[in-house]
Amino acid sequence: MAGPHGELVFAPLGGVGEIGMNLSIYGLGDERNRKWLIVDVGVSFAQEENLPGIDLILPDISYIVEQRRNLAGIVLTHAHEDHFGAVLDLWPRLKVPIYATPFTAALLIAKRLSEPGAPDIPINVVPLGSRFNVGPFDIELVSVAHSIPESNALIIRTPVGNVLHTGDWKIDPTPVLGLPTDEAKLRAFGDEGCLVLLGDSTNAVREGRSPSEADVAKTITGLIMSAPARVAVTTFASNVARLRAVADAARLAEREVVVVGRAMERVVQVARETGYLDGVQDFRGMDVYGHLPSERVVALCTGSQGEPRAALSRIAQDEHPEVTLARGDRVIFSSRPIPGNEKAIGRVINGLIDQGIEVITDRTHLVHVSGHPRRAELEDMISWVRPKSLIPVHGEALHLSEHAALARRCGVNVLTCRNGDLVQLAPGAPTIIDEVPAGRLYKDGKILVTAEARTIADRKRLSFAGIVTVALALNDKGQLAGDPEIELIGIPEKNVAGELLGDIAYDAVLQTFESLPKQRRRDADSVAEAVRRGVRAAIASHWGKKPICHVLVIEV
Amino acid sequence: MAGPHGELVFAPLGGVGEIGMNLSIYGLGDERNRKWLIVDVGVSFAQEENLPGIDLILPDISYIVEQRRNLAGIVLTHAHEDHFGAVLDLWPRLKVPIYATPFTAALLIAKRLSEPGAPDIPINVVPLGSRFNVGPFDIELVSVAHSIPESNALIIRTPVGNVLHTGDWKIDPTPVLGLPTDEAKLRAFGDEGCLVLLGDSTNAVREGRSPSEADVAKTITGLIMSAPARVAVTTFASNVARLRAVADAARLAEREVVVVGRAMERVVQVARETGYLDGVQDFRGMDVYGHLPSERVVALCTGSQGEPRAALSRIAQDEHPEVTLARGDRVIFSSRPIPGNEKAIGRVINGLIDQGIEVITDRTHLVHVSGHPRRAELEDMISWVRPKSLIPVHGEALHLSEHAALARRCGVNVLTCRNGDLVQLAPGAPTIIDEVPAGRLYKDGKILVTAEARTIADRKRLSFAGIVTVALALNDKGQLAGDPEIELIGIPEKNVAGELLGDIAYDAVLQTFESLPKQRRRDADSVAEAVRRGVRAAIASHWGKKPICHVLVIEV
Repeated sequence: MAGPHGELVFAPLGGVGEIGMNLSIYGLGDERNRKWLIVDVGVSFAQEENLPGIDLILPDISYIVEQRRNLAGIVLTHAHEDHFGAVLDLWPRLKVPIYATPFTAALLIAKRLSEPGAPDIPINVVPLGSRFNVGPFDIELVSVAHSIPESNALIIRTPVGNVLHTGDWKIDPTPVLGLPTDEAKLRAFGDEGCLVLLGDSTNAVREGRSPSEADVAKTITGLIMSAPARVAVTTFASNVARLRAVADAARLAEREVVVVGRAMERVVQVARETGYLDGVQDFRGMDVYGHLPSERVVALCTGSQGEPRAALSRIAQDEHPEVTLARGDRVIFSSRPIPGNEKAIGRVINGLIDQGIEVITDRTHLVHVSGHPRRAELEDMISWVRPKSLIPVHGEALHLSEHAALARRCGVNVLTCRNGDLVQLAPGAPTIIDEVPAGRLYKDGKILVTAEARTIADRKRLSFAGIVTVALALNDKGQLAGDPEIELIGIPEKNVAGELLGDIAYDAVLQTFESLPKQRRRDADSVAEAVRRGVRAAIASHWGKKPICHVLVIEV
Repeated sequence: MAGPHGELVFAPLGGVGEIGMNLSIYGLGDERNRKWLIVDVGVSFAQEENLPGIDLILPDISYIVEQRRNLAGIVLTHAHEDHFGAVLDLWPRLKVPIYATPFTAALLIAKRLSEPGAPDIPINVVPLGSRFNVGPFDIELVSVAHSIPESNALIIRTPVGNVLHTGDWKIDPTPVLGLPTDEAKLRAFGDEGCLVLLGDSTNAVREGRSPSEADVAKTITGLIMSAPARVAVTTFASNVARLRAVADAARLAEREVVVVGRAMERVVQVARETGYLDGVQDFRGMDVYGHLPSERVVALCTGSQGEPRAALSRIAQDEHPEVTLARGDRVIFSSRPIPGNEKAIGRVINGLIDQGIEVITDRTHLVHVSGHPRRAELEDMISWVRPKSLIPVHGEALHLSEHAALARRCGVNVLTCRNGDLVQLAPGAPTIIDEVPAGRLYKDGKILVTAEARTIADRKRLSFAGIVTVALALNDKGQLAGDPEIELIGIPEKNVAGELLGDIAYDAVLQTFESLPKQRRRDADSVAEAVRRGVRAAIASHWGKKPICHVLVIEV
């Protein structure tokens, strides 16, 4: 199969078979001498999963770390967390140049400055629509509409063939801000010849076309103009077009915009620096919020996903130090629940309604559109680029499968793959030729642990049934020196008869010890194991659950 | 305000301001001599909330337990868990007769028999549409359509006035099974005069009318008739009309029905006993599943909410001992995600699609309808009953608020209240006159703990940052006898530099002890507290999180 230039290969290390955590690698050359390119380095948010104490999930990049000598660089398509959120944590393992457009670069730098101890990363700022080389890869940026400024598809040209990596995109002729999807360049690339289209599948289950950001802007304008009192709008901070729509509406309604929440402040500052809020009035600090008449203010808040510590949740709980809302005020959720967050968002909405605040969501008003292509848009992309083959990426199994079916109906050859599949893209039709390690890392405090480490599984066990700890001092005659100490946590205080489970456990310690044959009492390990079993059984008989039990034996 | 018969009062102890856990109390008489009635004793499912180790949430009934001498009885409107699921756990605290119609009574008995040690509960089986007295309350059952057989609204007549407690209901002229909503009786009650309608708000945000079960049955029939290979249908087990629709479709398609999952088996047995599957062919046991040709079988499965141990999840993971599916088979989710379960359901769907199995949901096909009234149905109910006042019940703040707004637009006086409000229903317009204790109990293993108990909060702390346990033996000179023992769980093994956190904690124990002034070393409590702080600080500096630390000091 291999020609004089070897093969072009591709492997998703994240984002294919799941939502979020997008990281793709492309390799060029023969197997023993391949140069590599990374496209995107994203995270997933753990709150939707049952991972206690974990905020972020990162792709396990051990495979590409091993290839680091042959790694030419990292290209970031855009600045959403699921495409660039793992850079600060993973770059120290890679230490190669990063290529990003101005807004993405500025947001990465702003993020780095907000995290003490984050690495100083070399960023090559590349212009929109530009063409540049990363090692042997000839990359051309294609501007695409999305829900953040400067989303880019990548044309990747190599001696063995050219492919299109769409990144996140949609078609929006009136995107409020930034460039629409560059149809002309995509058609021209189609004329030139595209072997494989690697395309966003997120919305492949949805019929038709997404409405435009301009339609959303109109709705928001109407809602702000007609509001009888204060208005708060919550949206994804990075959606600068949406922020701009709110600002324009506020100006029409003669209201000041107050920005609430650190993520929102950071994006606003970066958008000002990069010109995306040129011509937009100055926003006001939270300190003036309380002094503005209620019909003269719009609060732009973080917290659209019900995050408990974000601005809107704190406002809904009446726990925000500076920003309050009251009966008759209006809150607009200019957002959509990310699956898994429904319950948390519901809590915020119900908290607001309990205070007599009006809540408007996309259930009844066009106050949000997705940034991903629906089915008619996917068909347009295929008709423009006319790829020989298509590989669905960015999505769960359902989305990949629907995207695949759609492409097949358009007459395109389809390969579906999953994280860790190594796919030969060229020469020849795409084929899975190998498997590479791909998994997940959890960010636990400051430490990255592998998904296989026992830490999280142990914490789940603790959260299910608590822990009993027993300390015994054992002398060399096999006698207890001093009274045993015992502590229970995460276990009900009393059984159904009202007896203390602590007393029951303590009795079990003594009874188990006394029931041991004399010679076994000298063996600390043997005593520990017997007491552990005795305590667990005693608690289980009263509770119906077996706690973890640690028995610490000190030999004195 | 009080006449010769005192007042009629009402208090929701659950279900008003939240979904699930419905329990209402009605009281008649003056404050010192009130007779009480309980309507419904429901649970909530804890999986959607962040309550590790808890399956069920029950209403805290301490208020009515105190009034037990004056409690006349419990009426169950229907057999859904959120209306009758707490009976077995709470009845021993109440010990009064229960009134239920035949299907509800049979399901309660079947549940009791499946739970070893459950109490033997006296049940008065009352016929559909019957009228009976519970203490001073004159109760009349009104059949209403819902998603389970024998749902009943209650007309509650008292000397001071009559009210309607709707329970869960919808309007469905063709409910496949059981009686449609008894419009004539409701209209007649309207003529007689209804002071207050206490009504289901669950679907008050949805416009229009629900489709009929008969429409769903048609869709399911088409999908089973056209299926190329095996079909599995998952639905709420208690929806006997749906089970019957699947059975009828299977018969038309010349397929056998195999029942998979214990909850489904139990409902099928009770439905057979109570006549709700009369004329329906016999179902087959799981043992024959593997022997039937793929185009001759329909599996009726539990697991529509993505419950990890239910039949469908195990089938999707290819872990079910007897039932398997393969590429080309069809799975129908005849259900809707309960908020909070979206992610778990998504996992099951993606697992099936990964195996090439076709998945059909209510997103694209009319394979499910809700059992609760949409807005046009709520308006019908108001127009039939013509209540003087309406109190929205069964729902979160959003649903109650929308139901209230709708009723006001219909010209009805509205009172909104929350769990624990004591409302005077008559004489006079409904008014909140007092507050009674209302809270939540968690079922933790076999033990009911109050929501305020530390158990669950401690388990959350354990799940966030684990625990370090230290054992020290201290002699009367303030010296360590033997080496300290230490154990860590739920904490990463190594810091970012690769050093063991266990070693770091051990060093902190010794250093803290040695840094203590001699006289403090003799005081066990003082040593324990110092070591606890030292260990937590040491771990936090390497991890960024502070674990719980228990220090057990044995005085030898």
